[in-house]
Amino acid sequence: MRQTLALGIDFGSLSGRVLLVDLTSGETRSVVTIPYNHGFLEQALPDQAEMLPPDWALQDPADYLDVLRLGIPQALAKAKAGPDDVLGIGLAFTASTVMPVKRDGTPLSQLPGLRANKHAYVKAWKHHAAQPEATQITEAAIARGEPFLQRYGGSISAEWLFPKIWQLLKEAPEVYEAMDRFIEAGDWVVWQLTGRETRNSCAAGYKSFWDRRSGYPAPDFFTSLDARLSGVVDEKLTRTVHQTGTRAGMLTPSAARMTGLKPGTPVAVALVDAHAAVPACGITESGQLLMIMGTSTCHLLLSETERSIKGICGVVENGIMPGYFGYEAGQPCVGDLFDWFVRHALPGSYLDRASEQGVSVYQILREDAGQQKPGAHGLVALDWWNGNRSVLDNGELSGLLLGMTPATRPADLYRALIEATAFGTRLILDQYTGAGLPVNAVFACGGIARKDPLLMQVYSDVLRKTIHVAHSDQAVALGAALYGAVAAGPLSGGFPDIKTAARAVPRPPSAVYHPDASSADLYDRLYAEYQVLHDLFGRDMPDIMRRLKAIRLAAASDRGYKE
Amino acid sequence: MRQTLALGIDFGSLSGRVLLVDLTSGETRSVVTIPYNHGFLEQALPDQAEMLPPDWALQDPADYLDVLRLGIPQALAKAKAGPDDVLGIGLAFTASTVMPVKRDGTPLSQLPGLRANKHAYVKAWKHHAAQPEATQITEAAIARGEPFLQRYGGSISAEWLFPKIWQLLKEAPEVYEAMDRFIEAGDWVVWQLTGRETRNSCAAGYKSFWDRRSGYPAPDFFTSLDARLSGVVDEKLTRTVHQTGTRAGMLTPSAARMTGLKPGTPVAVALVDAHAAVPACGITESGQLLMIMGTSTCHLLLSETERSIKGICGVVENGIMPGYFGYEAGQPCVGDLFDWFVRHALPGSYLDRASEQGVSVYQILREDAGQQKPGAHGLVALDWWNGNRSVLDNGELSGLLLGMTPATRPADLYRALIEATAFGTRLILDQYTGAGLPVNAVFACGGIARKDPLLMQVYSDVLRKTIHVAHSDQAVALGAALYGAVAAGPLSGGFPDIKTAARAVPRPPSAVYHPDASSADLYDRLYAEYQVLHDLFGRDMPDIMRRLKAIRLAAASDRGYKE
Repeated sequence: MRQTLALGIDFGSLSGRVLLVDLTSGETRSVVTIPYNHGFLEQALPDQAEMLPPDWALQDPADYLDVLRLGIPQALAKAKAGPDDVLGIGLAFTASTVMPVKRDGTPLSQLPGLRANKHAYVKAWKHHAAQPEATQITEAAIARGEPFLQRYGGSISAEWLFPKIWQLLKEAPEVYEAMDRFIEAGDWVVWQLTGRETRNSCAAGYKSFWDRRSGYPAPDFFTSLDARLSGVVDEKLTRTVHQTGTRAGMLTPSAARMTGLKPGTPVAVALVDAHAAVPACGITESGQLLMIMGTSTCHLLLSETERSIKGICGVVENGIMPGYFGYEAGQPCVGDLFDWFVRHALPGSYLDRASEQGVSVYQILREDAGQQKPGAHGLVALDWWNGNRSVLDNGELSGLLLGMTPATRPADLYRALIEATAFGTRLILDQYTGAGLPVNAVFACGGIARKDPLLMQVYSDVLRKTIHVAHSDQAVALGAALYGAVAAGPLSGGFPDIKTAARAVPRPPSAVYHPDASSADLYDRLYAEYQVLHDLFGRDMPDIMRRLKAIRLAAASDRGYKE
Repeated sequence: MRQTLALGIDFGSLSGRVLLVDLTSGETRSVVTIPYNHGFLEQALPDQAEMLPPDWALQDPADYLDVLRLGIPQALAKAKAGPDDVLGIGLAFTASTVMPVKRDGTPLSQLPGLRANKHAYVKAWKHHAAQPEATQITEAAIARGEPFLQRYGGSISAEWLFPKIWQLLKEAPEVYEAMDRFIEAGDWVVWQLTGRETRNSCAAGYKSFWDRRSGYPAPDFFTSLDARLSGVVDEKLTRTVHQTGTRAGMLTPSAARMTGLKPGTPVAVALVDAHAAVPACGITESGQLLMIMGTSTCHLLLSETERSIKGICGVVENGIMPGYFGYEAGQPCVGDLFDWFVRHALPGSYLDRASEQGVSVYQILREDAGQQKPGAHGLVALDWWNGNRSVLDNGELSGLLLGMTPATRPADLYRALIEATAFGTRLILDQYTGAGLPVNAVFACGGIARKDPLLMQVYSDVLRKTIHVAHSDQAVALGAALYGAVAAGPLSGGFPDIKTAARAVPRPPSAVYHPDASSADLYDRLYAEYQVLHDLFGRDMPDIMRRLKAIRLAAASDRGYKE
């Protein structure tokens, strides 16, 4: 009997995950994870002695093809499915993860003459070495009153496409000259599957200043940055941008051979990984907010209303779901913060207890921290270990802990860090609400949302919101598969649009957290203190953290031991 | 051959240490430590079920007699000395450690009818339950413009005698009625040795509002506090106060039997423990400052000049050495802070490395933290885990750490905590200097000063001062012995005064730290940031820490696990 499956791929930071979902039952039939052979290239290029500069993070596009070549056949086998069972393919990718390629799609890093040139490789999202270019772009856009800047909360990120291409031009003009296209890796993978260059509106909208009505900024803006950039859009990108939720094309025979799928299988336009999670969580209404909670947290909000909101990373019409303005914000240090704490600030006794009881150290911390009433630790923290991405949008901010006494215990510090991330989320929600965008319902997905009931209850209490945790632990890959089902269309057993898919397929929440009123009252008092510190160090006197960072960088070469 | 020995006793928080020094060579001949059988009584009285309230800390005076009875014979035996070899006896005691006694010196806690009454016991220095009384005394003194308040930096500590006696009166009027005297435990031990009640000017001056020219505050001040206190000085204390550096009396036959010493051996007037360390470090000049560095740090400065300095704990004429005004300041969390860090915020890998190498965990931390250049960690801390005792004088302040990133490592935090205590000391020195009291030379004694070369170098760099570390690791007991030698007098082989003793006996420093100019320049930048935070949280908005403490205390009963 023929099955009704859609295939989704989540190209993450260190691996690709291939998922097959049964569109009739909503059941995930298989998930296969293929780690990238090279991960991030942060120290050196493969087989090269030269060290990469600080803040560089490259990838090798061959690793992405491994996910297709190895992952798809394994996922089919695991699901006991054949090529005929797969209606459509969708994929989601980190962004901006961008690469220089030739006119036929060949990555420059695969040309023998450029294997040793670092600018020929993929610049991953977390490549932050284009910060000077990002700062200059922000300043130029402010000076010229460029309207696009308002869609990005007033500031441009070093992670995005134009800072990266400008860095490439400045540091390696020969590579700029040699490349025919500079493209999001997600769009490049779609190109490999369909044989057609197809730029997606999601990445273009959130990471490349593109808007469906006004397109890219005018050439004279780019000329004002650097005369050599005047033709960048037409020469290295394209003005043709495809709406997510549409079909990019059909699987080519060679791609079918590579993947074991059927030639002609519909392939969806790519999208940014976090955004794919939205339909997978069943979100289809204005005012619904999704928190994707992992090493960092991404907050995505659907709204019928367009607002320019200071300090929110981006707003794109149809950017998350057609018919809505999609808002994106983020906290850059969430799981990373707890990981830091457990590695570098937690006494061995916790690890001993965890190994005695055969549970994770987080479980032990939760047991201790979960017993106390909000505020009992007397602490308040600022969660800025990686700076602040939303509301303040300042990468030079750093972490703060306040209120310690000799009676302060590890579980107290741990709980204070959890609360700090919850307060940071509340500030983002307050920013939305204050701008006239109501947040009616909160959803969550990602590792932390599924694994940490203490944290989720704290968030529910702090936000005074019921939180629905996604059923799937692979929301991005599942969402990508839903886009694959939309690419297939209703006549083939798929769906007419992503909203219909989102209402039909995802299963009920795996958990629902309801706010406790008395805890919420106590958190209101702690949140007030958080706000005082937030405004003090984020707005009134951010220079103290900036100066400390400058002192640190000046002295860091002499720290004498490895980080 | 007859020896020329002096015997000193340091009655500390948890033990008494008996020391015999050879006055000719300066050699310490023996040290014997006798732990107090009961330590601090903080949970309950001996053999009583009733729990003591929070912030109580009592002691049993029988433990002090054990130090005499057991410690002195052991010290004699260890030094191969006999009763004839000991010229004189001196003792130093924590303060205010005060107790109610009958007219003959019998402690109320030894009366059968009062064994179960908590107010009948010694209230140790760290008994902080008289904070409401201390606050009321400060307020009343301000309201009446009492001149004595200026000698204490504008604020009265809950650790001192009058808050404690007032608490006793309010909570246990029957004990107040039953007692004939309320006396410093150091003076009580001298009474046991000599048969005479002899109040010392050091404790009276620093802890009991007494001044050699104006005596105690007038009765109407006490009446303004509580009508029942109108006669407190004459009824429960005495107006006769004996100058430290004089002889209290001679050893009685019964005390000689108890100790194995010779009847008639001269006994010095007692003094506060920290103050005894000054002559033991060879300090005899105006402008010389001693840091006594242990769980907390006490800063004692000799000066020819009298100044009233905001936020300095006390200034007493002749209080440390005759002929000088003695200034006292303090940081309440130094060794305690590092102990907290190692116990509650240090990963097990450090303990593993320490046990592999057979060294202390502090040694491993010093190895890591010592390699980095000042500022390389990008951190600044406020050392207020136990509040701030000097300059700000606010017990409701708490600790702060600022500047953390995912790259922050345990040795970074450790070094930042060391630096925070050094910056706190620099602020105290600045307070002295700013008031016109030059600090010409810095000396240090105590466990940390002798054991932690990294910390001492940081202090030297931060203060831009050469620091001389005392030769003796028992500076308080040695200083007490010097007072014993002064009590004996020059005709018996002792000394005419403490200054002469301080110049004759102590040995050269065990270590001298010189400031490194380039480190000092870097620390100037970090100190500027420390000052910003100090003034922000200590002066401009101390309420945030106060509010957090209030939230903590309100919720603490529900923390659910033991501290």
